[in-house]
Amino acid sequence: MILWDYWRSTAAYRVRIALNLKGLEAERRIRHLRRGEQRAADYLALNPQGLVPALVLADGTVLTQSLAICEYLDETHPDPPLLPRDPVLRARSRAFAQAITAEIHAVQNLKVLNRVKALGHDQATANAWAQDTIAEGLAACEALVGDQPGPFCFGTAPGLADIALVPQFYNARRFGVELGAMPRLVAAEAACLALPAFAGAAPERQADAE
Amino acid sequence: MILWDYWRSTAAYRVRIALNLKGLEAERRIRHLRRGEQRAADYLALNPQGLVPALVLADGTVLTQSLAICEYLDETHPDPPLLPRDPVLRARSRAFAQAITAEIHAVQNLKVLNRVKALGHDQATANAWAQDTIAEGLAACEALVGDQPGPFCFGTAPGLADIALVPQFYNARRFGVELGAMPRLVAAEAACLALPAFAGAAPERQADAE
Repeated sequence: MILWDYWRSTAAYRVRIALNLKGLEAERRIRHLRRGEQRAADYLALNPQGLVPALVLADGTVLTQSLAICEYLDETHPDPPLLPRDPVLRARSRAFAQAITAEIHAVQNLKVLNRVKALGHDQATANAWAQDTIAEGLAACEALVGDQPGPFCFGTAPGLADIALVPQFYNARRFGVELGAMPRLVAAEAACLALPAFAGAAPERQADAE
Repeated sequence: MILWDYWRSTAAYRVRIALNLKGLEAERRIRHLRRGEQRAADYLALNPQGLVPALVLADGTVLTQSLAICEYLDETHPDPPLLPRDPVLRARSRAFAQAITAEIHAVQNLKVLNRVKALGHDQATANAWAQDTIAEGLAACEALVGDQPGPFCFGTAPGLADIALVPQFYNARRFGVELGAMPRLVAAEAACLALPAFAGAAPERQADAE
């Protein structure tokens, strides 16, 4: 398999974690997001959305969207599972992950911040947009796991929710978001980062890190 | 079941379609989004994200995030299925749905447009933001189903991808987005709207439509 990747991509980071949790290897190929390499014609032919990650299977099939890729890996390599067995907890795990990918990350990613700047605003205004989005979104996520015993978001093993959480926390720190009021999420992140699957997927551990 | 809903909510519209496809009934309760009723304390206690939809099960369990709710309904009421059996087509269906929910709708919903206006921009600028986001996003979605024979997004029966597509097309028309260059998506929408499950979920058919 080939993973089209970029060290600092939040979405690609999720897939790196999932591959590690499943014990799968993929050859990393890089599109440098800040240089706009993901908008090159050859890459758009591969992924019309012009985003990383994209996972290319052995037969050339291209899969896109990080959570869909994670669920594909889970369905084709069920052990260890990325979702609980109970339908309600599965739904809550997916909802937590989507609350991060759609309501937080999609609204504060590089593309959207560039759009804010294209309206005439400076980097500080774009950063404040990101900070507000992340802080408000993660506060809701803390409540979404408020009844869960931990140590991970939903249960005693890491799963889809944790795969979404850890890269978003990385982003939160980049933008200086205060995390002190989110003890449940902080504890889940700590439990994750103690695992090689998460630690090895970290942005600064990737060969293309700058 | 109780569905917390609003006639014009794109995300709630998805769940209305899924319930109809599954032949399930839920009592609709309304939070008026433009009046900000989804931010009231009693509703935040139910859904910390302050968003519709939320689906309350018979035992009081609250499920959030439209795609997670759809997958819950699919897992607990498997017939008719909302996803293909083939793992790759399942992944592509989920990716298509997420390309709409995260990369399009999350970036152009009422909350984000209000944030654009809070930066000092007028409604026309906010509308242009929405138009650009929808047009670019749907053009990529057209390519994502380019190899599929139809009539629906992925196959001969409607599924998760179509559940995401139809409400986004409704939104596209509201914002005056040109859809002529997306024949495959236009055909899928037409196939959907011919079905009572989709037609009955349309915003203008809801009792709270204004």
